[in-house]
Amino acid sequence: MNAEIIAIGSELLTPYRQDTNSLFLAGRLAQLGVEVSFKTIVGDRHADLVSTARTALGRADVVIFIGGLGPTEDDLTRECVAETLGRKLQRHARIVEDLRARFAARGWKMAENNERQGDVITGADVLDNKRGSAPGQFIHIDDEHGNAIIMLLPGPPHELRAMFEEQCVPRLQTLLPRQFIAARELKIAMIGESMVDKRAAPIYKAHTDIETTILAGTPGEVQLHLRACAGSAEEAQRRVDALATALEDEFDDTIFASHGETMEQIVGYFLGMRSATLATAESCTGGLLAERITSVPGSSRYFLGGAVVYDNSLKSELAGVPGLLIAEHGAVSSQVAAALAEGIRTRCKTTLGVGITGIAGPAGGSEEKPVGLVFHALADGTNTEVVERKFFGDRDRIREWASQQALDMIRRKLMG
Amino acid sequence: MNAEIIAIGSELLTPYRQDTNSLFLAGRLAQLGVEVSFKTIVGDRHADLVSTARTALGRADVVIFIGGLGPTEDDLTRECVAETLGRKLQRHARIVEDLRARFAARGWKMAENNERQGDVITGADVLDNKRGSAPGQFIHIDDEHGNAIIMLLPGPPHELRAMFEEQCVPRLQTLLPRQFIAARELKIAMIGESMVDKRAAPIYKAHTDIETTILAGTPGEVQLHLRACAGSAEEAQRRVDALATALEDEFDDTIFASHGETMEQIVGYFLGMRSATLATAESCTGGLLAERITSVPGSSRYFLGGAVVYDNSLKSELAGVPGLLIAEHGAVSSQVAAALAEGIRTRCKTTLGVGITGIAGPAGGSEEKPVGLVFHALADGTNTEVVERKFFGDRDRIREWASQQALDMIRRKLMG
Repeated sequence: MNAEIIAIGSELLTPYRQDTNSLFLAGRLAQLGVEVSFKTIVGDRHADLVSTARTALGRADVVIFIGGLGPTEDDLTRECVAETLGRKLQRHARIVEDLRARFAARGWKMAENNERQGDVITGADVLDNKRGSAPGQFIHIDDEHGNAIIMLLPGPPHELRAMFEEQCVPRLQTLLPRQFIAARELKIAMIGESMVDKRAAPIYKAHTDIETTILAGTPGEVQLHLRACAGSAEEAQRRVDALATALEDEFDDTIFASHGETMEQIVGYFLGMRSATLATAESCTGGLLAERITSVPGSSRYFLGGAVVYDNSLKSELAGVPGLLIAEHGAVSSQVAAALAEGIRTRCKTTLGVGITGIAGPAGGSEEKPVGLVFHALADGTNTEVVERKFFGDRDRIREWASQQALDMIRRKLMG
Repeated sequence: MNAEIIAIGSELLTPYRQDTNSLFLAGRLAQLGVEVSFKTIVGDRHADLVSTARTALGRADVVIFIGGLGPTEDDLTRECVAETLGRKLQRHARIVEDLRARFAARGWKMAENNERQGDVITGADVLDNKRGSAPGQFIHIDDEHGNAIIMLLPGPPHELRAMFEEQCVPRLQTLLPRQFIAARELKIAMIGESMVDKRAAPIYKAHTDIETTILAGTPGEVQLHLRACAGSAEEAQRRVDALATALEDEFDDTIFASHGETMEQIVGYFLGMRSATLATAESCTGGLLAERITSVPGSSRYFLGGAVVYDNSLKSELAGVPGLLIAEHGAVSSQVAAALAEGIRTRCKTTLGVGITGIAGPAGGSEEKPVGLVFHALADGTNTEVVERKFFGDRDRIREWASQQALDMIRRKLMG
C-alpha cells in the first residue's frame, strides 16, 4: 500500500512556512504498513488542487488532503475533492448546528460563511474535530471504479494529530492488511557517505527483504536506516537485527549508534558509565563542542566546563598553555592542541581534557596552515592523543567536523 | 512565470528528513518575479520520478529538481530527466577528471561509481560544484516543443545555495522578463509574535501595496518581511522603505536589524565600531552564546574568549566567582551572574564581560527557582547590569532565549 500526502495552502509555497504534518503522518502510516510515495504542496487555486487530486488518485492507494477546510473562500478542499471524485457536496445540518453552538459558547455570532464547513462529500464519514471548528472527512471507495482511501484533515497540527489518531487509525486498521514492521538506525562516524555506501552495498545484497536508506547527517555522521516488514513482529525484528549485525561487523567501531542516538548522547552515556568527567578548551570551534555536549539533559553530571580561547593570551590565562609554546609552534599546532587538553584537564580537575585549535576561515589560512586545518587533542593524565585533520567546506562545516572529530575521540577512548 | 520545485530522495518521505532547500529557492525565485505553484517530494524510484517530471513540465515554466545527483545507484535524477525530455546522457571527460583530481587532492582513490556524476543531458549547461562532488545542470528549452527552464541542483543546502546564486541567478536574469522588486527584512528582539502583529497591523493598513509577512525566528526574534513590486527599481525601493521607516518609528530600538542581519552580526558590528572587546562566562547556555558570537567570520577581532562553567568549582576557578557568594545566594542568582560577568571581564582583560546562569531543565528546577529562570549580567568595569527572565519551552528553547537576551543586552549597551 502506498500513500500520497497533499498539503494545501499558498503560505506553504512561501519561504516562511513549511508543512510539518507530513512528518507525523509518514511515521504513523509506516507503522500501519503504508509507505508514503509522494508529498505534494499546492496553493489555494481551484484548478491546481483538482489536477493534484486527480494525479494523486491515479497513483496512490491512500490519499490524505491536509488543510483548506476552513470557512473562507480560500478553503477549497471539499469542493475540489468532490469534483475530482464526481460526487456531490451535501450540507449537514448537524455540523452547522454544532458550529453555531461552538460560537455561541464563546459568546460570538457565527458568520454565515462558516456554514460551508458543514459541506460533506457524498458517502464520506464525518470526522469530528474536538480541538477546532473544521470537521474532517473519511472516504473508502471499493467499487467498479477502483479502490482508494481518502482523508480530508485540518491543517493545525494538534487538530490533525488528534483526529488522525482517534478517528482515522481505527478505520485504517480494519481496512488495511495486517503488517508488522521493525526499524533500526545505525550511525557511522568520520567516514564519507560514498565510502559507507560502497562497503554497505555487498551486505545489503544478502538482505534484499530489508528496505535501506543511507543518509548524510551533520558533518562526520552517516546514517543507515533499516526497515523490515514481515508476517509477525518477531520475524520483522529478527530480519532487521540480522542486517544490523552484519553491518556492525563490517563497520566495527566506526558505528557509534545502533538505535539512532546522537553522538552527544553516546559520549554522555560512556562518560556516565565510566564515572569520568570532561573539560574542553576550544579555539576554532568557539564553544560549539561544549554547546553540543551540554545540549544533552543531565550533562552536568559529567561535563564540568571549559574555556573558549580565541585570543592567544587566553590560551595561557584560562588553559595554562605556555606563551613560549605558542610563540615557538604557532597557535594552530599539534603542541598547542596537546597543551590545551592537558592544561584544561589540570585546571578543571577532570578525568579527560579536550583541546581544539585550527583555522575555520574564511580568512586566516596560509600555504603551510590552510583553512580547514584542525588539531584535536585528548588528554587523560597519562597520554595525550593528537589528531590532525584537514576539513573541507565553509566555516560552519569546518567547525561541525572538528566538534564531531573531538567527540569521536572521546567516545573511542572510553570504549577502549 | 510559475515554478515547480521537486525534491528527490526517499529519506524526504520518512519522518526523519524534510526538504528545506525549497524555502531558500522560493525566496530567491520571488525576487526574480517567479512564483512557486507546486512543490513535490518524490522517492528514489525511476517510475515515480519520471511521472513527477512529466507532470511538472506540463504545468510549470520553471522546474527545479533537487538531489539524486550523487554517485550511488539511488541517484536517478540525471537519467529520469533525460528520459522525460527524450534526450540522451553523455559522460563528460572533463567532469570525471575534475572529480578524480578532487579525490586525489584528499589522498583518496575515486570509486568507479563516481564517474556517473559526469553524465550530462544533451544541451544542458554544466553547473560546477565548488563545495561538493555533484555538478548541477541548467537546461533552457525554447523550440517547437515549448518553453521551459529546467535545473538539476545538488541536495546539500550549502552546495545548492552557492550553485543557485552564482550560476543559476545570472542565467535566469537573462531569460526572465525584467521585474522590479524591493524587499526589506526587519527583526525585532524579545517581543512576542502576537504583540508585534497587533502593533504592526494598523501601520500595514496605510501601505496596502506592500506584501508583508510576520514570522517567528529563533526564540527572541520576530521577523517582518516586506516586499514591493513596481515599475522601476527606485519606486519599489521607495515604497518598501516608507513602510520600513513607519515600522521603525513604532518599534524603535527593539528593532535590531533592518536588512535581515543576524543578532550575532549586529553585536559584532557594534563591538567593532566601538573598538570594544568581549568575554563570556556561561553556565546554563553551555557555550551557545560563545558559539553564536564566533559563528561570525572575523569575530576574533572583538571576541577574546570565555568560560563554560557548568560545575560550581569552575565558576570560581575560571571566572573568579568567590565560593562564598555561591554558597550564600546559590549558583542561579543575580549575584553570581554579576560576579561571572565581572570575573570573566577581569580575567580576560576585555571591555565587556557577560555572565549567564540559570536552569535550562528538564530537571533541576524548584518552586523558588523554576526551570526557565535565567540571570543575565553585563559588566563594563563601572556598572554591572543584571536582567532576570523566566523563559518557557524546552531545554533548547530556554538556552536560545537566554543567549538572545544576553546578545540584546550587549547590543543595547553599545548603541547607548
